[in-house]
Amino acid sequence: MLRFNSDYTEGCHPAILKRLTETNMEQTPGYGEDAWCAAAADRIREVCEAPEAAVHFLVGGTQTNMTVISAALRHHQGVITAESGHIHGHETGAPEACGHKCLALKSADGKLTAEQVAAYVDAHYADESFEHMVQPKLVYLSNPTELGTIYQKAELEALSSVCRERGLYLFLDGARLGYGLACRENDLTLPDIARLTDVFYIGGTKVGALFGEAVVITNEKLKEDFRYNIKQRGGMLAKGRLLGIQFLTLFEENRYFEISAHAMRMAEKLKAGLIKMKIPFLIDSPTNQLFPILPDAVLESLKENYTYTCQNRVDGTHRAVRFCTSWATKEEHVDRLLSDIRRLLPAD
Amino acid sequence: MLRFNSDYTEGCHPAILKRLTETNMEQTPGYGEDAWCAAAADRIREVCEAPEAAVHFLVGGTQTNMTVISAALRHHQGVITAESGHIHGHETGAPEACGHKCLALKSADGKLTAEQVAAYVDAHYADESFEHMVQPKLVYLSNPTELGTIYQKAELEALSSVCRERGLYLFLDGARLGYGLACRENDLTLPDIARLTDVFYIGGTKVGALFGEAVVITNEKLKEDFRYNIKQRGGMLAKGRLLGIQFLTLFEENRYFEISAHAMRMAEKLKAGLIKMKIPFLIDSPTNQLFPILPDAVLESLKENYTYTCQNRVDGTHRAVRFCTSWATKEEHVDRLLSDIRRLLPAD
Amino acid sequence: MLRFNSDYTEGCHPAILKRLTETNMEQTPGYGEDAWCAAAADRIREVCEAPEAAVHFLVGGTQTNMTVISAALRHHQGVITAESGHIHGHETGAPEACGHKCLALKSADGKLTAEQVAAYVDAHYADESFEHMVQPKLVYLSNPTELGTIYQKAELEALSSVCRERGLYLFLDGARLGYGLACRENDLTLPDIARLTDVFYIGGTKVGALFGEAVVITNEKLKEDFRYNIKQRGGMLAKGRLLGIQFLTLFEENRYFEISAHAMRMAEKLKAGLIKMKIPFLIDSPTNQLFPILPDAVLESLKENYTYTCQNRVDGTHRAVRFCTSWATKEEHVDRLLSDIRRLLPAD
Amino acid sequence: MLRFNSDYTEGCHPAILKRLTETNMEQTPGYGEDAWCAAAADRIREVCEAPEAAVHFLVGGTQTNMTVISAALRHHQGVITAESGHIHGHETGAPEACGHKCLALKSADGKLTAEQVAAYVDAHYADESFEHMVQPKLVYLSNPTELGTIYQKAELEALSSVCRERGLYLFLDGARLGYGLACRENDLTLPDIARLTDVFYIGGTKVGALFGEAVVITNEKLKEDFRYNIKQRGGMLAKGRLLGIQFLTLFEENRYFEISAHAMRMAEKLKAGLIKMKIPFLIDSPTNQLFPILPDAVLESLKENYTYTCQNRVDGTHRAVRFCTSWATKEEHVDRLLSDIRRLLPAD
Repeated sequence: MLRFNSDYTEGCHPAILKRLTETNMEQTPGYGEDAWCAAAADRIREVCEAPEAAVHFLVGGTQTNMTVISAALRHHQGVITAESGHIHGHETGAPEACGHKCLALKSADGKLTAEQVAAYVDAHYADESFEHMVQPKLVYLSNPTELGTIYQKAELEALSSVCRERGLYLFLDGARLGYGLACRENDLTLPDIARLTDVFYIGGTKVGALFGEAVVITNEKLKEDFRYNIKQRGGMLAKGRLLGIQFLTLFEENRYFEISAHAMRMAEKLKAGLIKMKIPFLIDSPTNQLFPILPDAVLESLKENYTYTCQNRVDGTHRAVRFCTSWATKEEHVDRLLSDIRRLLPAD
Repeated sequence: MLRFNSDYTEGCHPAILKRLTETNMEQTPGYGEDAWCAAAADRIREVCEAPEAAVHFLVGGTQTNMTVISAALRHHQGVITAESGHIHGHETGAPEACGHKCLALKSADGKLTAEQVAAYVDAHYADESFEHMVQPKLVYLSNPTELGTIYQKAELEALSSVCRERGLYLFLDGARLGYGLACRENDLTLPDIARLTDVFYIGGTKVGALFGEAVVITNEKLKEDFRYNIKQRGGMLAKGRLLGIQFLTLFEENRYFEISAHAMRMAEKLKAGLIKMKIPFLIDSPTNQLFPILPDAVLESLKENYTYTCQNRVDGTHRAVRFCTSWATKEEHVDRLLSDIRRLLPAD
Repeated sequence: MLRFNSDYTEGCHPAILKRLTETNMEQTPGYGEDAWCAAAADRIREVCEAPEAAVHFLVGGTQTNMTVISAALRHHQGVITAESGHIHGHETGAPEACGHKCLALKSADGKLTAEQVAAYVDAHYADESFEHMVQPKLVYLSNPTELGTIYQKAELEALSSVCRERGLYLFLDGARLGYGLACRENDLTLPDIARLTDVFYIGGTKVGALFGEAVVITNEKLKEDFRYNIKQRGGMLAKGRLLGIQFLTLFEENRYFEISAHAMRMAEKLKAGLIKMKIPFLIDSPTNQLFPILPDAVLESLKENYTYTCQNRVDGTHRAVRFCTSWATKEEHVDRLLSDIRRLLPAD
Repeated sequence: MLRFNSDYTEGCHPAILKRLTETNMEQTPGYGEDAWCAAAADRIREVCEAPEAAVHFLVGGTQTNMTVISAALRHHQGVITAESGHIHGHETGAPEACGHKCLALKSADGKLTAEQVAAYVDAHYADESFEHMVQPKLVYLSNPTELGTIYQKAELEALSSVCRERGLYLFLDGARLGYGLACRENDLTLPDIARLTDVFYIGGTKVGALFGEAVVITNEKLKEDFRYNIKQRGGMLAKGRLLGIQFLTLFEENRYFEISAHAMRMAEKLKAGLIKMKIPFLIDSPTNQLFPILPDAVLESLKENYTYTCQNRVDGTHRAVRFCTSWATKEEHVDRLLSDIRRLLPAD
């Protein structure tokens, strides 16, 4: 079985396991207060050009999202998100379990626009019974989005301005950030993101680590007492050094960017192959998640040797599915998938 | 100023104040465990033909909604509601503050359909990652809805079947129930509602009481420990007898239905008058909330002597507004409003 | 049956019902934005000598406690309270249901001391794993306490200093505040309390109103967005004027203080009578809640004609119970209770 | 620096890292639905002699505690725990953040007794205002406790009976379970624990794994929908196989018990050495956490080369501290610590 359903089907970059093995019997303090975490945080501040940022390491995405959101908000405040936002549809209501409503805005491509956010917030305060509605206070973006799309620098700048003018926090979920930064269409850098958001995270789970997300907080108000919130939400790993070691290994020697670039080369090859077969896409994603629309019969046959994620039904005989590449994807597997699809496709 | 913006602009039916005054120096046990509450509960069980129902009295609608929802659900479960549902848009996220996500479905007329609920729930369980989404467990209806529309008996029966087949609770918010039951188009009775739902409430605040909502629980599982939940959510009134006295006064001598019928006569008169002037409506509401679409200039002038609620902008020069009648509406005020609108309307 | 079990066994001061009746058919805006609420708030600011205070009216005590606490705190913060504090033991975990832990300190007399609070907070920050513990951020006092005791001005000043030095909010639950201010041992005034706390409330439910608590907020940070929180916790009464009318009636013409003084005269008479019979007390309460220790046999007989609250068992044959007086207590009932106890007591 | 402050100062048993390395590039499904997790769950069911048990793998202790507690309880229900229980004092209020109050009972040795639990629950229901208090529904034990003590089989049987008679869930936190089972005084087995509790977990983080806790659920009601709760609380590891591989490695070939036995041999040696020096203990712990009382001067000097945890001050010149041994403790380090203490102790 070849797995293209997600970008977390393998373990981790071998350099990480090697280092975990080398350092295994070292004794360190717990809970992220060890030298490895300190070094990794320093390195991340450096690559983000954000010397004052607070950097914390958590285990997974849902945990990180709920910790950031609940640390930032008072009880009556909610989160603006695209309807397709991961927090709205795929975290079993974790933000709501912390008391915070997702204020979901429509979006065809998984992105929010500055205009949309401004309009929503302005309408809130213009309503005579605004206090009967959840106060919008934090904007949640994912980049790349759940549909594989990315924000252009100008878009993020506009969102940042809208948020700052209206007193909203801007939070960017970077679970797949590496793939976004490595894609051809991207014009954002880590320093841009650090400068334009109040808090964001750099995903490790999907980009070469066994697990782990590095939260970068630049807004002073959000830095305060953050570790209490990590602990309360169950995200303070006893052997925190495991996170420090992983992120240091990813960010030393440019590894995070190189392995992301590999995933993007694999995605481009896959995309080009599908386009060549005239397969349409649900959305034109520039990153490592691709959403081709395939005949049910093809998908049925593919299932014997490949995994993919069902995205949605398009018509009576076609479904959109998701194929992911990752740091671990082998070129021969992409070739094999393309060749099998070609074979299965009905002749024109 | 004549207030048509809501149905809670006056105090209460005079018979209630008379009785509160007569009984004022009586000593009773607190927290709803007095003889007045017992008598009122008995009377409500009688009019609902639900001898086994548990009846509890709470103070207001948001409080009642959050108490019922949080008493019914486990943490990972959510509430299916129309997008226009009061709990979704006008209770400052009270369900979410209790940990429960509103699963909002589109609705043009404020109502949910059985098909819609069935499709949503079936899609949930058909999704391979269903455990990553909030489990739908309770369906919230309001009758009349926030748009003044009502459920027909056949519609409620269909919803009830869908819920029972799928193990969902059906909860009906009856904040304006009297007006729904009293309207011409209605074919539901209190016994129908008691039979078809698991829990519902009969609104007092908007139908003749100073305040108060009577919760009727017919599902055994929802009866268990309900009073703990009332207390926890701040809804256990120390002088509970105030609620018992009010509901007893409303339900003795058919008063609840008579005052509701008055409100409906006033609404019909107002509606007929507006139709005669060829004023269009945002929605064709059969109950005491009317949503005419009026020119901005008319609305501006009306503001000097009348209050109304802004519903939404329809075009560059027209807005839909809400006018409410109630148990307390005076016919002469309806006449005056109609005549003033007629006067202000541009000649054809 | 004569009820001495609590101070909320009757309705309200007749002047309130009279005014509710006089104003019943007035039309007002809802949700506390009417002229009655505005006038009552002005009057309360005046008697508190706190012209900048925000004043809000809520329905009941549990609701008020949870609204204030959840409006004030971030998720990782908790409430310091005496173990006997109402929020800790008698609100079905309402603060915890909002996410906030009660940090309960021992107290023999229901009061916290400044030293105790300082020691607790200082120990928190001295602990190397302080982030693994709930951060103490708000101190909850009740005055009078659940044991009928009161704070002296010097004690409240000391608590206020400790809180301000350590960045804690000081919150005083005044559900029975009238009785505390009216008692002989008291040296506090409303202006003192307004000056020394960040937020407190003046109880109406137990002191002459049908229901209602007036929250007075002096700390700027706590004023922000408070009405969102009232709505979210179900405390925003649709016909808010009912609260305004009640508090205006209580605070015009000194009524609140006069009816409290009556309750205290009744309590003093009852206490003196019990002392004369050499009945011991669980605690020496100077206010309207008395905790005599009586033989089981006496209590058993009293039960036929009186209600009281069981406080706790003292030994194999004696229990401490609570008798309350109130604004509504009749002197002849106190006399009758005393005479019945005298009759039932075993001869020496 | 030699670290005796906790049992999670190293990485993991080398066999685990070896296997993680060998399996690193395998592709597996995510979220614990892979073959490794299935095999580990089977193996745990086997060693627990609980063929019907549900087994889930989570990352850490706080996360596991809050997931189990919030999955089991309705909103008005709380957790009985010893005052020293980890959930009460060292998880930043995680249970409360999920809405559930810790009902803390006094305990000198960190253990609860069956009598204590029975008395508490019976008093709850005997109280006339029981609905004003949090309903006790789940009993939380840790074994070994936070003070290193363990439950005897007869004690756990008595607790189990009390819970079953009163409809309470019994939940055992086994973060250090291996060390408890391996100690000389222990007479419990995994099958006993599976039989006597409703849910418990086998700690990996402190007993040889990089991280991970294996939850074993035997009560049918608690099995339902558990994975939704794992996801909602952020505990569903994307690469779940990491947990399966670790627990399979620990439970194949008896490894979990052997490495626990090593830790106990080290603890016994350390304890014997301290006793020989006539050092008193705060509590007589039979497991891998020891609480000797040492002079401040000795502790001050030790700090240069050793870490320990401060437990509490005993008198003006002595403190109780915690030394832990673990699966990773080297005998020579125990010897060195003992010899250094001996050298530092004042001559008699």
